[in-house]
Amino acid sequence: MDFAFDTRTEELRASLLDFMDSHVHPQEQVFADQLAGLDDRWAWSTAPVLQELRAEARSRGLWNLFLPVGHYGDLGAGLTNLQYAPLAEITGRAGHLAPAALNCAAPDTGNMEVLAMFGTPEQQERWLRPLMEGRIRSAFAMTEPDVASSDATNIETRIERDGDEYVLNGRKWWITGAMNPECEIFIVMGKTDPTASRHRQQSQVLVPRDTPGLTVVRPMHVMGYDDHEHGGHAELRFEDVRVPVSHLIGEEGGGFGVAQARLGPGRIHHCMRAIGVAEKAIELMCTRADSRVAFGRALSEQGVIRDWIAESRVRLEQLRLLVLKTAWLMDEVGARGAHTEIQAIKIATPKTVQWILDKAIQVHGAGGLSQDFPLANAYASIRTLRFADGPDEVHKNALAKAEIRKQTS
Amino acid sequence: MDFAFDTRTEELRASLLDFMDSHVHPQEQVFADQLAGLDDRWAWSTAPVLQELRAEARSRGLWNLFLPVGHYGDLGAGLTNLQYAPLAEITGRAGHLAPAALNCAAPDTGNMEVLAMFGTPEQQERWLRPLMEGRIRSAFAMTEPDVASSDATNIETRIERDGDEYVLNGRKWWITGAMNPECEIFIVMGKTDPTASRHRQQSQVLVPRDTPGLTVVRPMHVMGYDDHEHGGHAELRFEDVRVPVSHLIGEEGGGFGVAQARLGPGRIHHCMRAIGVAEKAIELMCTRADSRVAFGRALSEQGVIRDWIAESRVRLEQLRLLVLKTAWLMDEVGARGAHTEIQAIKIATPKTVQWILDKAIQVHGAGGLSQDFPLANAYASIRTLRFADGPDEVHKNALAKAEIRKQTS
Amino acid sequence: MDFAFDTRTEELRASLLDFMDSHVHPQEQVFADQLAGLDDRWAWSTAPVLQELRAEARSRGLWNLFLPVGHYGDLGAGLTNLQYAPLAEITGRAGHLAPAALNCAAPDTGNMEVLAMFGTPEQQERWLRPLMEGRIRSAFAMTEPDVASSDATNIETRIERDGDEYVLNGRKWWITGAMNPECEIFIVMGKTDPTASRHRQQSQVLVPRDTPGLTVVRPMHVMGYDDHEHGGHAELRFEDVRVPVSHLIGEEGGGFGVAQARLGPGRIHHCMRAIGVAEKAIELMCTRADSRVAFGRALSEQGVIRDWIAESRVRLEQLRLLVLKTAWLMDEVGARGAHTEIQAIKIATPKTVQWILDKAIQVHGAGGLSQDFPLANAYASIRTLRFADGPDEVHKNALAKAEIRKQTS
Amino acid sequence: MDFAFDTRTEELRASLLDFMDSHVHPQEQVFADQLAGLDDRWAWSTAPVLQELRAEARSRGLWNLFLPVGHYGDLGAGLTNLQYAPLAEITGRAGHLAPAALNCAAPDTGNMEVLAMFGTPEQQERWLRPLMEGRIRSAFAMTEPDVASSDATNIETRIERDGDEYVLNGRKWWITGAMNPECEIFIVMGKTDPTASRHRQQSQVLVPRDTPGLTVVRPMHVMGYDDHEHGGHAELRFEDVRVPVSHLIGEEGGGFGVAQARLGPGRIHHCMRAIGVAEKAIELMCTRADSRVAFGRALSEQGVIRDWIAESRVRLEQLRLLVLKTAWLMDEVGARGAHTEIQAIKIATPKTVQWILDKAIQVHGAGGLSQDFPLANAYASIRTLRFADGPDEVHKNALAKAEIRKQTS
Repeated sequence: MDFAFDTRTEELRASLLDFMDSHVHPQEQVFADQLAGLDDRWAWSTAPVLQELRAEARSRGLWNLFLPVGHYGDLGAGLTNLQYAPLAEITGRAGHLAPAALNCAAPDTGNMEVLAMFGTPEQQERWLRPLMEGRIRSAFAMTEPDVASSDATNIETRIERDGDEYVLNGRKWWITGAMNPECEIFIVMGKTDPTASRHRQQSQVLVPRDTPGLTVVRPMHVMGYDDHEHGGHAELRFEDVRVPVSHLIGEEGGGFGVAQARLGPGRIHHCMRAIGVAEKAIELMCTRADSRVAFGRALSEQGVIRDWIAESRVRLEQLRLLVLKTAWLMDEVGARGAHTEIQAIKIATPKTVQWILDKAIQVHGAGGLSQDFPLANAYASIRTLRFADGPDEVHKNALAKAEIRKQTS
Repeated sequence: MDFAFDTRTEELRASLLDFMDSHVHPQEQVFADQLAGLDDRWAWSTAPVLQELRAEARSRGLWNLFLPVGHYGDLGAGLTNLQYAPLAEITGRAGHLAPAALNCAAPDTGNMEVLAMFGTPEQQERWLRPLMEGRIRSAFAMTEPDVASSDATNIETRIERDGDEYVLNGRKWWITGAMNPECEIFIVMGKTDPTASRHRQQSQVLVPRDTPGLTVVRPMHVMGYDDHEHGGHAELRFEDVRVPVSHLIGEEGGGFGVAQARLGPGRIHHCMRAIGVAEKAIELMCTRADSRVAFGRALSEQGVIRDWIAESRVRLEQLRLLVLKTAWLMDEVGARGAHTEIQAIKIATPKTVQWILDKAIQVHGAGGLSQDFPLANAYASIRTLRFADGPDEVHKNALAKAEIRKQTS
Repeated sequence: MDFAFDTRTEELRASLLDFMDSHVHPQEQVFADQLAGLDDRWAWSTAPVLQELRAEARSRGLWNLFLPVGHYGDLGAGLTNLQYAPLAEITGRAGHLAPAALNCAAPDTGNMEVLAMFGTPEQQERWLRPLMEGRIRSAFAMTEPDVASSDATNIETRIERDGDEYVLNGRKWWITGAMNPECEIFIVMGKTDPTASRHRQQSQVLVPRDTPGLTVVRPMHVMGYDDHEHGGHAELRFEDVRVPVSHLIGEEGGGFGVAQARLGPGRIHHCMRAIGVAEKAIELMCTRADSRVAFGRALSEQGVIRDWIAESRVRLEQLRLLVLKTAWLMDEVGARGAHTEIQAIKIATPKTVQWILDKAIQVHGAGGLSQDFPLANAYASIRTLRFADGPDEVHKNALAKAEIRKQTS
Repeated sequence: MDFAFDTRTEELRASLLDFMDSHVHPQEQVFADQLAGLDDRWAWSTAPVLQELRAEARSRGLWNLFLPVGHYGDLGAGLTNLQYAPLAEITGRAGHLAPAALNCAAPDTGNMEVLAMFGTPEQQERWLRPLMEGRIRSAFAMTEPDVASSDATNIETRIERDGDEYVLNGRKWWITGAMNPECEIFIVMGKTDPTASRHRQQSQVLVPRDTPGLTVVRPMHVMGYDDHEHGGHAELRFEDVRVPVSHLIGEEGGGFGVAQARLGPGRIHHCMRAIGVAEKAIELMCTRADSRVAFGRALSEQGVIRDWIAESRVRLEQLRLLVLKTAWLMDEVGARGAHTEIQAIKIATPKTVQWILDKAIQVHGAGGLSQDFPLANAYASIRTLRFADGPDEVHKNALAKAEIRKQTS
């Protein structure tokens, strides 16, 4: 047992921290201003400063770090999950700009992984290469408005074969990134065979944005935010949308398996970025507490505020170790062997980070809820994690069931 | 001891519930649509449907119910705090439309009370009458960006006498309602004598919107909401703003006392409306739980969801009784005698209602955070109550100090 | 709506507070010393000082206050639930001595109510009169070790008719008071007809302590306490225990109804005494905080401690109002009409009081867990309330089910 | 970074688990019975079964495992903190018998470390050797009844030099193990020079049990338990107690430093044993939930119970990683470098384990609070950890202060 990062991780951390300090943080306001000046408020990825940062990141070898060993290796960095995790944390400290600059932003990362693992050479050439070069964006369309789609068997979108084509009909929502006109390709989950066994009914197909019958209905809001700075969350309607059968990912009926495969690494990325968010919140909380005086004493000298800061630190240290252990376990035994831990970090992360953000907001007073600090926006984002990939309650239920089985067998 | 409402309260409740069902609820969407169509997004009070509802409310005797006995009685309803409280709860169930339709919306209510209690006949004729007739709106400018202004001695805005005029300089923010162009009059708290004793330094003056030197700098956001549907929250700048000395409210150095006087009733209104919000959330939570199926069973049959519903009901019943008791105590012994209880409801209400809203959101899944339900917007609003009139921690500290003194004397 | 106590209540409160100050509190240590000197550690009710206090209480008209109007009125005080509730709170502040001195100690109170309501004249003469005169004690035997007996249909103890006798077989535990040799009569719940409908299977019969076949197996401990100072909690075994059929309470198959009837008032008593416990804890917490210095400042000046004290006060005020409202509702519409509220106070009370006790203990440091303060013993007692009459989870489940039904019908 | 145990740890874990299964667990009831039969209820270490287990442990190389590399190495096992930690967890699952059987029970472990590190050859020969051979027991007397002794500068016990002797006067309480007559030696903390600088006032001296002037006043109770099965917690009085100056540990004025040195490893042991307690609680909770039926379904199928089990697992995994990391850090950079982490585990451990125990108790119903399960006793023990070595609040305050300093420098 050893709690130190290995040499490559330390080198990459140093390199990334340097890039953040010298390039990303100084440009955060520029990025915000450029976004505000866009003709299409959703076309965030066209902001000029982002192109510059990408070029710089690429020249520094900080590009596509997320893609693990063995996947389409000429473009990926070949890091293990454990090596990439602390880098994801660093990007999480700086909002949406850092992941985008490194081409490590969700949901593109998951989509690239899926294409790297399951894509045909043609699919990879057409979609994966431009994604890995940051020339286009992508979205993953799974969640549906009318059913509890965390239970994949509830999915209602139909993908029916008709000759050489698949025909899609259905509704999706909360499709992150899809409002961005540069989001050119959607990976869509639907049912090809509702009569098959529970986990063989679903398939995933690639649907280009401009396919007839595909309508972007509206943007969904998250606590008042439309999240345009990373492409929003769209409601989509598929009406007799036709794609060639060559757009199938993997095999027919294999959609559930493809979805599972993308889950593990993505969840670690999400959790580590959320930990970065919490670190930023602790920093802001301390800075504010130190500079603000009420009733004759700095907030930083008041017991209740100190209690929040101490609790934040103690909770976050525990959480980070669990996520890192999960990354290590993924590397050692794969997603299936790390199943319980992957559930555990999904349960633990939003709860802890949300708690820290709430306290950081409180220390900032009303300003903490406003546009003057990143805390309220972060709170809204983290709050969504309690539903994303299924509500926490579903995961707790499953984890407990397994625990009881283990203890009583 | 008697926990039943008196006859007048029951009659007014019945009348108000009927008005809500027949007129307010059916027009909520109309109001939203009219707001969306305004040229000035902040001019919410000009929505045509609101004028119709006001006329109807007035014809039904549901107008200015908030104004207690003895204050400017020809317009007010003369209800006790205890009689008005359950009516405020009912209006809280239906967002911002209901209070506005009844001319019982904050911050106008507090401003009208202040003018009724402390205004000169000229001030009342010029500002109170149009406010009570719903012809103009008002704002109360106390909070400042640079200091912890829950401690009134920290206030930095200066009000300096210069001949027959007062000259104001300073910055304010979170001035609710002030983005609305119909908000014609601001009550501004500032220091007339920074050398006086702690609670005699402040005064309040009336500043018309169009006074030179007064700039509306920007709207503040609450999470992602700008709250334009009730006038937003403005940052204001006062640069050599001049008003005649006749615009002073009460006496010079009396600003702290005026602020205290408005606090009690206003807090009861806020808390009761928040309880109405929580009731709506429980209703939505139950309805949703009953209609949604996951993993083969309705959510309403799942233990964790039931636990949330039971906890919500049990917590809310306790909270409501405390607020009602506080209203009763205000009527019996005045705000000073009810001091501890007024602090207690300030501490208890946001915490309880926020908890209920969080669970109601969770039951709704991602939709609960979106514009499709009123829950996320309500959450943001209620969250601000943990700072409004000073953060909870300040009130807890004071309440505890008094408790310790009582127990050890 | 009126939150003031009526005149009779105020008079009785004054009278009881005077009795507590002049007689009960000064004798608490004497009582403890006398208990320590008993030959039979369980015979708490034989302590000489208790007899003196009882005589005094009786002479002051503070005797059997718990028994409501209309029940066996020549001995009872005829108070409403709402009038008695604040008196129960006062007794709760002083451990087990005060209720015993007033002949208002559980489980005798519930047993006396049952005998007053359902007893035959012979049963009343033989058992009720000596109980009301404080000459004997009683126990109520319902809970069983092998089943979740909060669900009465699970009860396994058999009561079988055999000619003019009932024959009992079964096991019971947690039978409070039963270790005391002065506990002469047990009311035993069992099944007379397991084939009847769900709530008609049970009956209650009177079993004198010395009946052959009844064995007191052992005392149960609560945390490390055996609660000998109020009769302990016994495990009992019934092996072919025979009583005449005249020992049936009410009618055969009516046991569930009898159990329900005793629940409402008893729960209000329990909750109000628990509130008295919490009041005592707040007093001790404040006194200690005020007298103890750490790191250069009194605990009472430290923010975290003040936060606990404020939270304690705010939570307790809400809880008390809910219990008082429930008492009022019981008086107005009976136990059936107050069903939801009776569940609610069962859920809310132990949670709140346990929280307050935990904080009071923490303020006392290690001493708070020891025999030097009443806090740890109180904690253990209050902790049992989360199971007594069924675990909280059962009550929450039922309350939520009713709420959902109400909201969706 | 590597989350697997090393080979030696795995071997020792296997060996220890085998010993637990084959020898310790089968004898737990025997040990309890023998304790109940002792003439002196405090002489727990004389139980015959314990001697057998010790012999067996010693023959298996499972003796004195706690003593780290470099300390008195001929008797100690020479494990790192990280190697010993998972072994401490295993012993924690089985109450007080396992640590005693392995000669790894507190407070003897800390006392042995102190003697190994700071003892003179004479002190080691006279006290350390018999302790390491399990022939005598020891106690550490620091806490005082009249002051907040977590702040060492508050200590009032005096140690005054008089010629070749030290003279001790003062009171101590919560001296764990001291009721056991086999506890032959006390390490006593007191002030040799109250005028010296803050952390140079204290010294530690060895006081044999039979020294005149030393009185064991009484046993302290912990929530009703006297903890006689591991020597209880005594109140001690020192009246002109004289020991030769050769009984000084380390140097005069070095007492604070000696106390600090024993803290780190001891806290890791405590925390890992507490994690073992929590593991046992989860096991019992699952077993019970699986076997108990209420309202027609096993508890293990009910959502709220599953929520508790999942939360227990998720919280415990995080906690364990933090404690293991702290052990690793101690090995890498010493106690001073691991200061923040040592505080963090002190804060996190009791809170988490107490929460798990509370839920495990609730799943067991009233039985969970009784002598029939180890849960309530464990709860009382763990509850004391929130004060031991200073209340959590003191540690949170210090940790937050350091965090603020780090973030704002």
